[in-house]
Amino acid sequence: MAMTEWGTIVDGNPLRQTILERYADFFPFDAIDSNVSLYEGFTPLVPSRRLASRLAVNNIFFKNETENPTWSFKDRGTVVGVHHALSLGYRRIGTVSSGNMAVSVAAYGARAGLKTYALVSTSIPLEKLNPIAVYGAVVIQVEGDYGDLYFRSIEIGKRKGIYFINSDVPLRVEGSKTIAFEICEQMNFGVPDFVIVPTSSGGNIRGIIKGFEEFRRCGLISDIPTMVCAQAAGCAPIHDAYINNEDMISRVEYPQTIAHAIENPYPPSGNEVLRKLREGGGLCVAVTDDEMLQAQKELACEGIFGQPKAAVPLAAVKKLRERDIIAHDDTVVCIVTGGGLKYTAVCERHDLIVRSCSLMGLEMLISQLWD
Amino acid sequence: MAMTEWGTIVDGNPLRQTILERYADFFPFDAIDSNVSLYEGFTPLVPSRRLASRLAVNNIFFKNETENPTWSFKDRGTVVGVHHALSLGYRRIGTVSSGNMAVSVAAYGARAGLKTYALVSTSIPLEKLNPIAVYGAVVIQVEGDYGDLYFRSIEIGKRKGIYFINSDVPLRVEGSKTIAFEICEQMNFGVPDFVIVPTSSGGNIRGIIKGFEEFRRCGLISDIPTMVCAQAAGCAPIHDAYINNEDMISRVEYPQTIAHAIENPYPPSGNEVLRKLREGGGLCVAVTDDEMLQAQKELACEGIFGQPKAAVPLAAVKKLRERDIIAHDDTVVCIVTGGGLKYTAVCERHDLIVRSCSLMGLEMLISQLWD
Repeated sequence: MAMTEWGTIVDGNPLRQTILERYADFFPFDAIDSNVSLYEGFTPLVPSRRLASRLAVNNIFFKNETENPTWSFKDRGTVVGVHHALSLGYRRIGTVSSGNMAVSVAAYGARAGLKTYALVSTSIPLEKLNPIAVYGAVVIQVEGDYGDLYFRSIEIGKRKGIYFINSDVPLRVEGSKTIAFEICEQMNFGVPDFVIVPTSSGGNIRGIIKGFEEFRRCGLISDIPTMVCAQAAGCAPIHDAYINNEDMISRVEYPQTIAHAIENPYPPSGNEVLRKLREGGGLCVAVTDDEMLQAQKELACEGIFGQPKAAVPLAAVKKLRERDIIAHDDTVVCIVTGGGLKYTAVCERHDLIVRSCSLMGLEMLISQLWD
Repeated sequence: MAMTEWGTIVDGNPLRQTILERYADFFPFDAIDSNVSLYEGFTPLVPSRRLASRLAVNNIFFKNETENPTWSFKDRGTVVGVHHALSLGYRRIGTVSSGNMAVSVAAYGARAGLKTYALVSTSIPLEKLNPIAVYGAVVIQVEGDYGDLYFRSIEIGKRKGIYFINSDVPLRVEGSKTIAFEICEQMNFGVPDFVIVPTSSGGNIRGIIKGFEEFRRCGLISDIPTMVCAQAAGCAPIHDAYINNEDMISRVEYPQTIAHAIENPYPPSGNEVLRKLREGGGLCVAVTDDEMLQAQKELACEGIFGQPKAAVPLAAVKKLRERDIIAHDDTVVCIVTGGGLKYTAVCERHDLIVRSCSLMGLEMLISQLWD
């Protein structure tokens, strides 16, 4: 299909392929073992003409990462990390996570028959714990600073022989590249004007940038989109450093957002993301919980139910459009990072109505509600 | 790609296609409008060598329908139903559902800008209600017989101009055909020996059978797999009629299963499924809640977390293997119909363990748990 002197996309039908096979030339492996795969990736790029028209932009696409094996983008990095761990002979893996990554690593660890440790923060909503444990992982809620836990886990892992596939370890970042690869393919090797990524640790946006850079170096695309790091206003260390022109991020002392999945107060890839955004003309946007919730509802009314953080990019589009940074003829891709069923308790914030009636009273109720 | 005098699979990359486009020749539409699509289908066929080896069969594949836009197979039938409704000029759609179908119809109704009525049973778990309402549908819990509600809704719909895309309406059944189409493509136009489908109303298994039949009529495949209708023992009207050699199904008076998604006591397509199974040498299996739960855990330990009903096929494999109906050299496809996050409360039945410790105590806890 697309062949260059640097790398080739392996021709084939995605119905019978894994991302490891299709993009093999872009991974640092001598040989690919697709047995570790759960057939992650190859997610749709869903156009939203209605929202685009309402916001007066050319088009908005939703890269729907909720259609992954564990319903978040994390599976892309996890499969690459597990592949690496196995190639190095590890029999134990782990991760530090606020939820989605723990689910993902637990699933792939189970798939590969590895002993798996999921270290989660105490802020994780209850409904997220059992869906990690169900895969057979050792789940531990660790009290203490989440940022410290990140580094402590890697130290412990080194001593005890546990490969921690944390949020910005190099091989996980390699997995996130495939989001960019697929967007390029789905847009026939054109690129959008903006790609907006909900950002916590920074690993995912780093991977997506790297993916676009590699395809450009290969000559498969000619430009790189303007990359937007979108954070929750209640925990926006990269955004804050960016707008204050600081060289380094500072720890957020009191993170507070409903989007627990992106509330890392001291993101390990924060400084690297800051550098890459400045180098490449990228942007940062922070959105409030209310803006996020409104976007979550609007996204659902386009047919896609994302978890709160997954709606951050749409909220960011609205802000960037208001400031005319996104122009009327621009095309935007929002990364919808995880599914709404991850955190249904947040629905209570939407004041949703569920009616009830008897079978006899049904037709009358429908008539009463007619409009 | 695959062209016959009866119908052609439209060549193309599933990354840039919808199932409506790829299989257009197999749908009863003059023209396809992919605007109604949320890019459903094209789900993975995941091989499980480990479970296959444990159960001593050639291979077990999981058709992972949890990677659909609303995380169940229902989206395939919904997109076809909505396409039909729009082509007939309807501005209102609805469905009668125990959960998954309501979510799906609500999502696609929102996508198409249609007023959408989701009529749900009172047995639906609470955690499933808000994820229907979030899409903006009118959600009504209707007290009364679920089977009666099915037919009553269609009557009301005729009077009031609401297109009810219920579980076995013809166009929904057309959508389910694509599960069979994809399995054929994914197996390079070979077919498995057995395909096992969790069955409630009977619409899905009817569609899957029809899909295989159409591909055989086109000469794309030479055989049709042995189709297995798998039901929950606590609500198994098709199974019961089948083993008792009855011509017609009887209503289950007191349905009782944790798998609410398949507890239709008087399935509208029950008699048709019975007829098709007898005609084609198909089978029926019923599994208990305990068998279902055990299979749910085993499936998760392969990396796929399905809702209870989605584990019914794996439980059925075990039963059919014990009876040597599935032989050691057979290949089996299990339809994993919906995602585990649909109904996380059931996890309490698994006695899962979540541990906790302080950051300081983490390494010691890991050491204590070493094995």
